[in-house]
Formats: sequence, C-alpha cells, structure tokens
Amino acid sequence: MMPQLQLAVQRPGSSPCLDTVAEEVPVAFEYNGISHTVMLATPADLEDFALGFSLSEGIVARRSEVYDIEIEEAAAGITLRLQIANGAFAHFKERRRSLAGRTGCGLCGAESLTQVMRDLPPVADGASFPLAALHEGMRRLPALQALQQTTGAVHAACLVDGDGNISHVREDIGRHNALDKTLGALARTDAAAGGALIITSRASFEMVQKSAALGYGILAAVSAPTAAAVRLADRLNLTLVGFLRGSSCAIYTHTQRLQGSTT
Amino acid sequence: MMPQLQLAVQRPGSSPCLDTVAEEVPVAFEYNGISHTVMLATPADLEDFALGFSLSEGIVARRSEVYDIEIEEAAAGITLRLQIANGAFAHFKERRRSLAGRTGCGLCGAESLTQVMRDLPPVADGASFPLAALHEGMRRLPALQALQQTTGAVHAACLVDGDGNISHVREDIGRHNALDKTLGALARTDAAAGGALIITSRASFEMVQKSAALGYGILAAVSAPTAAAVRLADRLNLTLVGFLRGSSCAIYTHTQRLQGSTT
Repeated sequence: MMPQLQLAVQRPGSSPCLDTVAEEVPVAFEYNGISHTVMLATPADLEDFALGFSLSEGIVARRSEVYDIEIEEAAAGITLRLQIANGAFAHFKERRRSLAGRTGCGLCGAESLTQVMRDLPPVADGASFPLAALHEGMRRLPALQALQQTTGAVHAACLVDGDGNISHVREDIGRHNALDKTLGALARTDAAAGGALIITSRASFEMVQKSAALGYGILAAVSAPTAAAVRLADRLNLTLVGFLRGSSCAIYTHTQRLQGSTT
Repeated sequence: MMPQLQLAVQRPGSSPCLDTVAEEVPVAFEYNGISHTVMLATPADLEDFALGFSLSEGIVARRSEVYDIEIEEAAAGITLRLQIANGAFAHFKERRRSLAGRTGCGLCGAESLTQVMRDLPPVADGASFPLAALHEGMRRLPALQALQQTTGAVHAACLVDGDGNISHVREDIGRHNALDKTLGALARTDAAAGGALIITSRASFEMVQKSAALGYGILAAVSAPTAAAVRLADRLNLTLVGFLRGSSCAIYTHTQRLQGSTT
C-alpha cells in the first residue's frame, strides 16, 4: 500500500484535475495471535510503528522482547502480527483480564477509566539542552516532511540533537502514530534516550506518557498542550514545550532542562 | 470540570505568567451498565457527545432509543452512563460478542479489522446547496470558537445553512468528538438532516461515516481529506469538500450537490 495516491478533485473556477491525497488504513495489532486494537494510520514505516507502539504503551519493556514483526496486507486493512516474549505476553493477557474484571462487563472489548493513566516513574534528569537547538530543529523540519508537502494531511515527529540536527522523521495522519513511529525508529538504534522530541501537532497527555515511557525528557509541540499533558509532564519530570514557532515558544514544565529559557 | 484552566508558563525573554490551556479528560461510555470505550475529550457538551456518538456509531438508530444519560465525574475521569432501548442493547451485545468470536481472542477487548467499516446506505440526494454559503459559514465560524480563541488547542464542528448561517458549534480537543457533539446537538432538535457540516480539521473516513450515518450529505473540512475518506464519501453519496479557506476549496466527491461549483 502506498502512503499517498492521486484522486480527482474539482476546484471551483477550474477544470477537474488530480490531487495527491494521504492514504488512511485500519492497522490492527496482534500479539502472539491475540488481537489487541485497531488504529487508523498511514501505511508507511510500519515496523517502526509496531515497535514504537509496543514500547510506548508498555506492552513490552524493551526492544529485545519483540521477537518478530509480520506485516499482512488485506483489502480490509493491515495486520501487524507481533511475537513477543512469554513474560511480556503473560503481563499483556493479565492486564486485559483484569480490565474485564474491573469493568465487570462479562463480555468483551471493555475499557475502563482505570486503564488510561499508567504508573510510570519520572524521567531521569539529564544534561541540559539548548533552547536554540529546538528552534533550529523546527526550522529544518518542514523540508523533511515529504508526505505533508504533497498531501497537507499528515503530522510529523522527529528527534533533534543539541546542535539542531534532526533525525528519525516519521509522518502519519495520526499524531500519536507519528510519535510512535519515531520512538520505534529510535528504539531500533539502541541508543540511550537523549535530545528532544519534536511533534508538529498539539501535545496530549498520551504523547507525554509515550515520550516519558521511553525515557525522553523533552517534548516540544508546534501547537498547544492540553492541561492533562501539562499535569502529567510536571509529575513525570518531563520538559513540555508548546507553540514552538519561529523564535518563540512556551515552556510549561521543568524549564531547568533548557539552556537559555529564562531571562 | 471546566473545559479550560490557567497554568503557569515560561516564555523565553519574559517573566513567568499564566496561560489558558484546554482540559483533556478520559470519558468512558457505558451502555446499560456495560463499559464500551474510553475517549479523551473536552469536558463540555457531554450530553450532546453521548447522544451524537451513540447515533453516529450506530449503537442506537434513533434518538428515542436513548432513555437516559447520566454524567458521573470522578478523579480518574468522566463516565457517561447511557440507558438505551432493549433492542439496541441486544444488538450492541451481539456485535461485541461476534467481534470476540471473529478475532478468536478468548479474552477481552479485542477489535478486529472487520469492525472498522460499517455497512451504511448511501445518503439520499437532497436540494442543492450554494457553495457560497460554505464560504460564508467558514468566514463566520472563528468568532464562535470560544475555547479555541483562549487555548489554541481545540477543533470545532458546526452546521451551516443555505444562507451561510452557522449553528450548533461544538468544540473538542478531538476532531471526531467535536463532530459527534454537533451531531448530538442536531439530533436533539429532531430536525431533518439538512444544510452542510463544517469541521475545522482534516477529514477522515470516520468523519464521513459519522456524517452519512446521520443523513448529512455535505461535509466540508478546513484541511485535507484522507484517501479513505474520499473513497467512502464517493460510495455513500456524500459531497466531501476539503481545504475550505477564503474563497477557495477542493471538492472531492459528488459535486452535483453544490451550486456554483463548476465553471
């Protein structure tokens, strides 16, 4: 499947022509033969997505617990079949079973409020990071958003280092998916979590949770954070930056990590 | 719970100050005591959300099948407890049970690809609608996005009539939720589905599906549609408009409904 395709469009005052449109495909996750969830996603970088989601949602604790990722395309969508270690799978089944018990549904598919917030440890303090590198990264990112340039429909996530160099750019119609893909791509390198994550969207509390779960201490968003994202970032010792545009930004939590952030 | 609150923020080069941030809360749906799903949403217009989601997802077929909506706030989030008619509930349970069977999970919470696409009838042809009214509606909408003006973090949905008058403006941090709230607010009026829906976001296939499920024939988005949205709109006889900005737009399907759309 291609991440984009050409479709006919009518623009008033012009003749019908072709427009490049982002694809959107249901992607199902299956762990050791057990269906987990379905998300709508851009069909690209699916191994990164599979690994990143599994890690950022705490289904596996480390990359080595994912033994195999199989990608199966069908008319109805794509299934990502992961084989994970026995210990992780036992934990996965237990979590699902206890959810069912808590909600008392007796059926299937129930999700309750108790599942939403995970009990993560705070991110470790690390070396401080120059605020100027965030701005430099954001200046360079648009040129690397290949799918966004042709479709105008997708978000991106990436890592930026202390010199403003960006890497691991991943795009998806879903902002959480874009972040999961970048986190998965980073996990494949087995490098320690350093630098800062940039996302071209708003910042939700799930994105804070995903970043902290992988040990990243700085998350910078082009748009606004939610209040829940700010509260969680405060609790998890994560530096949350919003409205990263031009030479300005708004730092909501743990400013101490950013050099050049105070007057 | 308030849909927005004030939090401290540090803007480089300035003293710390307060910023208005959108709230984001887990909202759980429960039907006749059975947990269904949890979504992150803006805690406002929750009765509209409950009714709109139930209708747009086909859990009930009509408003009269929702007997009662109870909103329970707790520290972990909000639970929407709906009492629905026996027939609708039997169908709801059957759908969940067959899902479990199809995926063969034997546990709980499984969702498979077969659930994603619903088998909806095409929207009926209706009176044609002036394209100029879409532009006029879009011109008027920003002034009515109260929460967006203070937080910069939320999407809006609304209805626009043939004269460009907009109504039923609803906001949410989730674009699907904003649309569900508007659809729910519209369903409370018991008026026939007319006019056009406007959303301030991209258009996904789920938003096409939700609009068509309630009988709306025109969906206009400020940003891009996905390819899946275009395919589904084509199949469901829904007019899908993207990039509705200023005096321009791109019409992807069923241009015949829009007056003034061809040269």
